[in-house]
Amino acid sequence: MNFEEMLREELPGKIRELLEERKFHELQETLSVLEPQDIALVSERLEERDVLLLFRLLPRETASKVFVEMSPELQEALIGMFSDAKLREVLAELYIDDTVDLIEEMPAGVVKRILRNTDGESRAAINEILCYPKDSAGSIMTTEYVRLDRDLTVADAFARIRRVGVDKETVYTCYVTESDRRLIGLVTVKELLFADAEAVIGDIMTTNVIYVDTHEDKEVVAQVMGKYDFLALPVVDRGGRLVGIVTYDDAADVMRDEATEDIQKMAAIVPSEKPYLKTGVFETWRKRIPWLLVLLVSATFTGRILGHYESALGAVPLLTVFIPMLMDTGGNAGSQASVTVIRGLSLGELQLRDVLRVVWKEFRVALLCGLSLASVGLLKALFIDRADLRTAAVVCVTLALTVLLAKLVGSTLPLLAKRVGFDPAVMASPFITTIVDALSLLVYFAVASALLPALAG
Amino acid sequence: MNFEEMLREELPGKIRELLEERKFHELQETLSVLEPQDIALVSERLEERDVLLLFRLLPRETASKVFVEMSPELQEALIGMFSDAKLREVLAELYIDDTVDLIEEMPAGVVKRILRNTDGESRAAINEILCYPKDSAGSIMTTEYVRLDRDLTVADAFARIRRVGVDKETVYTCYVTESDRRLIGLVTVKELLFADAEAVIGDIMTTNVIYVDTHEDKEVVAQVMGKYDFLALPVVDRGGRLVGIVTYDDAADVMRDEATEDIQKMAAIVPSEKPYLKTGVFETWRKRIPWLLVLLVSATFTGRILGHYESALGAVPLLTVFIPMLMDTGGNAGSQASVTVIRGLSLGELQLRDVLRVVWKEFRVALLCGLSLASVGLLKALFIDRADLRTAAVVCVTLALTVLLAKLVGSTLPLLAKRVGFDPAVMASPFITTIVDALSLLVYFAVASALLPALAG
Repeated sequence: MNFEEMLREELPGKIRELLEERKFHELQETLSVLEPQDIALVSERLEERDVLLLFRLLPRETASKVFVEMSPELQEALIGMFSDAKLREVLAELYIDDTVDLIEEMPAGVVKRILRNTDGESRAAINEILCYPKDSAGSIMTTEYVRLDRDLTVADAFARIRRVGVDKETVYTCYVTESDRRLIGLVTVKELLFADAEAVIGDIMTTNVIYVDTHEDKEVVAQVMGKYDFLALPVVDRGGRLVGIVTYDDAADVMRDEATEDIQKMAAIVPSEKPYLKTGVFETWRKRIPWLLVLLVSATFTGRILGHYESALGAVPLLTVFIPMLMDTGGNAGSQASVTVIRGLSLGELQLRDVLRVVWKEFRVALLCGLSLASVGLLKALFIDRADLRTAAVVCVTLALTVLLAKLVGSTLPLLAKRVGFDPAVMASPFITTIVDALSLLVYFAVASALLPALAG
Repeated sequence: MNFEEMLREELPGKIRELLEERKFHELQETLSVLEPQDIALVSERLEERDVLLLFRLLPRETASKVFVEMSPELQEALIGMFSDAKLREVLAELYIDDTVDLIEEMPAGVVKRILRNTDGESRAAINEILCYPKDSAGSIMTTEYVRLDRDLTVADAFARIRRVGVDKETVYTCYVTESDRRLIGLVTVKELLFADAEAVIGDIMTTNVIYVDTHEDKEVVAQVMGKYDFLALPVVDRGGRLVGIVTYDDAADVMRDEATEDIQKMAAIVPSEKPYLKTGVFETWRKRIPWLLVLLVSATFTGRILGHYESALGAVPLLTVFIPMLMDTGGNAGSQASVTVIRGLSLGELQLRDVLRVVWKEFRVALLCGLSLASVGLLKALFIDRADLRTAAVVCVTLALTVLLAKLVGSTLPLLAKRVGFDPAVMASPFITTIVDALSLLVYFAVASALLPALAG
């Protein structure tokens, strides 16, 4: 996209120039055609002092939207330069869930200053959200939504939306509650638009409302919203009282972050929420080294097995040549199965109780894969590696058995992990590769001992 | 969630019972509290004849919503049982993009029957969408949106929304076009709600509209919508004329499917759009065997290298023991880098021009990782594997060099693939593992030859 290129390459320079020449009016015009996300993107490429200047030129509401989209580093720098009055002004325009996100990123001193400059009502809501467990529905919800009474008319409802809706993140789904805040229904603005102005909300509302508990896992929240295509999902407490809503954009962020996390875990990386280029070298190292060390040490077993069969390798040197092929194929076959199961679990397509269906399916797929690979392996051993028929047979049988073992280990281990409450993705490819490596060597030498006369004694 | 369990376990039986006892009224009541997605889920567990009966009991609009959510197999079976009149009725309620999705899944004969039973206007729109390249914005858009003229008042706009909006997938963003359909602005229902009834659309509309071209990649569409949190994104043709919109739910589906595809490619699986349990054994085999074969054959090189150094392994048998550790560590270090870069590219966080920043960063991370692993490897070789100091030094130096090579190959290969127009994810872990395996063995034997007197000759 050329627009993105322009944003990154040309715009920062142009803005710097306009600021230097104090052409503030022209600058305001340039900024007025940009989305807040793009002004934030450009700000990351400017000096902090210039960003502060820029900030003063933006309309109050836009400035706050831009602020939300900035990196935590830039946000912290700006807060440091803001007067208390300016900080109050920016915070007043933020949605509650954005303020919570901000607070979670800032150091303790800055958090205190933020809370001191937030009005009492918002501060109570913020504290409430901060109390919910990490990764729960409560922690990602916003407490700003439009609440309606069942006895309002449609015309009343529109009047109420106009009165209270400006500050709400979404007005398109309105929630109907009893006076004790128990959720009893919802009505969308689309339904209101097509209803008679005199109709009563209690008569037109949808009463079968799908909601989640404040303590529900945010991944489940994203799954539910993805399934029903909701714009917002109500969050209720244990007493059935409505305490907030999760909006579709936050659910989309959860989906994206969870996929990234799963991918990182599959590649033996400790998950991080920061974009790659924003993560420091030392931090990247810290996310990568733990699994590398674990896997380095666990490779000892595989090495030991090889060491144990040194004499066999000495007796039939050709056996050595096939070791990488057997280990790699086992590892690949295993991670195909494990990654498929892990993704199925993440998307909610697979449940624990599907374990027998999974095993039965992987067993049949493994038979097909094992047979195909064994045939090609046989031909390769005979005609490319010039092995004798017996050695080729050893390779061929080992391939088939290894693939079978690898697929079964690969598909069941993530399910087992989930069953005992571990993260299935952590059980993924690299770990399974290590196990399958060891298994394939054991199978190899067992088959070789059985079939090769040179090793029989 | 207990609700999901209930849907899968109890409800199908209960519905079957009610159908058998012909308690249709009670059945209608049971269904009325369910979302279309859930009725579709339950239908998958019923006999096809029962689904047809169920279908007749549902209100027309709900029936079509349920139909959209069914599996292609069940959709095809139902269409086979529908009369032409019933099929017309169902199709008339579908959104255009859902009809297109349906057509793409059905065999040719069924497609003909669908098109024959679609009204002329819809058929034209369907054919238009079907003409766009696979994975383009045009192919996932819908042609149903609310179009406004700039000289309407807000009150006129509401009247128009009420008149034309029932059939539109979203009414919350309305697009303003010239009479030749050139897109000139947009206005949201929220803005309309807060505007004066007499205000003119041309005065209150947003004129800096972000849009995509019909041929833009759908992954970019999802990235743009994720960035700006839009409910819908307009799609324009080369002449700037508005031809459709992509809605947030379809963008979320694209995001989810692209993540799944990337994960599959990283695990050496040919991507498939079908859920795991819906994919047959033979099809699963077809998706997995190609890469297994490629990697099997490419492992020949690694085997050849081992074969070439057989005499060295014979001279210093202890060298064999460290081979799995060196190969595995290289593979893991490489895929950490490649997977990180691939995900960064997919999310749009990384661009091709970042290549130098990436290499420089990976170089420093690799130094840190290499040093840590080399130290642990040295201690392990000395005290666990009881190697002499020289052999331990060989292992230690090889580890450091392998990690460095692995990180550099892992991070640059996906970028190189993207540069020449290949899919970066296909270049991922297993392929890089094979390359790194070969490299680590070459380094190992080179270092061993240099440091060990037994091999020096």
